[in-house]
Amino acid sequence: MSNPTAAMLVIGDEILSGRTQDTNTRFLAGKLTDAGIDLREVRVVGDEQGDIVAALDALRGRYDYVFTSGGIGPTHDDITADAVAAAFGVGIGIREDARAMLATNYKDPEKELNAARLRMARIPDGADLIDNPVSRAPGFRLGNVHVMAGVPAVFHAMVESVLPGLKGGRPLLSASVPFAAPEGRFAARLADLAAQNPDVSFGSYPFVKDGVYGANVVVRASDPARLEQARMALEDLAASI
Amino acid sequence: MSNPTAAMLVIGDEILSGRTQDTNTRFLAGKLTDAGIDLREVRVVGDEQGDIVAALDALRGRYDYVFTSGGIGPTHDDITADAVAAAFGVGIGIREDARAMLATNYKDPEKELNAARLRMARIPDGADLIDNPVSRAPGFRLGNVHVMAGVPAVFHAMVESVLPGLKGGRPLLSASVPFAAPEGRFAARLADLAAQNPDVSFGSYPFVKDGVYGANVVVRASDPARLEQARMALEDLAASI
Repeated sequence: MSNPTAAMLVIGDEILSGRTQDTNTRFLAGKLTDAGIDLREVRVVGDEQGDIVAALDALRGRYDYVFTSGGIGPTHDDITADAVAAAFGVGIGIREDARAMLATNYKDPEKELNAARLRMARIPDGADLIDNPVSRAPGFRLGNVHVMAGVPAVFHAMVESVLPGLKGGRPLLSASVPFAAPEGRFAARLADLAAQNPDVSFGSYPFVKDGVYGANVVVRASDPARLEQARMALEDLAASI
Repeated sequence: MSNPTAAMLVIGDEILSGRTQDTNTRFLAGKLTDAGIDLREVRVVGDEQGDIVAALDALRGRYDYVFTSGGIGPTHDDITADAVAAAFGVGIGIREDARAMLATNYKDPEKELNAARLRMARIPDGADLIDNPVSRAPGFRLGNVHVMAGVPAVFHAMVESVLPGLKGGRPLLSASVPFAAPEGRFAARLADLAAQNPDVSFGSYPFVKDGVYGANVVVRASDPARLEQARMALEDLAASI
């Protein structure tokens, strides 16, 4: 049985302009790896409904799970919920349970829960809410699409809310062996090792540090014994160059 | 005249596993913004030829420029050059000018320029080389696709090599105004401002700092006078809440 697959869709002009460094993808990627869910593709699009819908349509049919980040706040440029409703062809409106969650965030909800904030209680028809212990405004899941906030602290909390409900697989275990030599010195022998161990994935990640070339070679496998065999073979190779 | 458009394709299992934080996208995004080229979409795929080809085919027809990062080193998992050749339906082989560039990196090229390293001189037919002043192994441009290294220091150098040859547009100028209040307190008036200034883009980027909610509101426009008008209107709004 192969593991479930996933895609991430990051939504926001601020990523595409270079203003903001996305870190939500890496956070989610680590959590999915631990859960045995294979993150296969990431896309970043801007705050344009057509672009969001096109990406959702491409990803939700291809992967078991889709996770989105960004565009669910109270301002005019927060259009993710409407785009998800459009992609699924369902209606959207203020939901009482979402409004009640939001209300717990304010001392005087009658006054403070204004029209802008109520935008955050607009949920596509048929969705389940995703709990947000940080700032209350919920995310939601519709079909296999999990819609979460862009602010990292809130995104992290929503991912933790969602993880227990996902069906995982066999976690891909990994081990890293540093090579204090440029890749070209050991690439041929590494390729041989990879060919001899088709059930283990070998990746070489070069770096330049203080002008010196090296690489971290990472082995990945689901079987701990096979991982350890591959790791030891790599250690031998690293010691021999 | 609207600005040229661009997409970025990040290639590498290490991004999808969460092992490595991609920072090349943000670097490129900032450079393109300064050059008046609109980065519209980013994708991340793993080291699988089918996935790379599919992403290239989707992006190179849709955007004026495509930039890739990763997968052009000497190891067995570096398959980007072959994937680009496959996407364009052209051959690939060792090119003498690329081999000559590589050779300058070694004291004894006869001995050190081994088969693995020569993989880095394999260039799809019809491509132009992209200079790599850091570690010599070149990138290449084929059609509108610019193929560059994943190691950030090398990626940065290749982007600088490529930028002078790109046709830019009017740079989108931006200004940021901090709001020391949660978005819900000013979202309605911000939406009014955005509606009154359709030639200026208004984005609100919330943050949580030491438990206090605030937002940076960013205005973007090509016309410096219009940008300044919008910035002043935002300052007034920020001071009034």
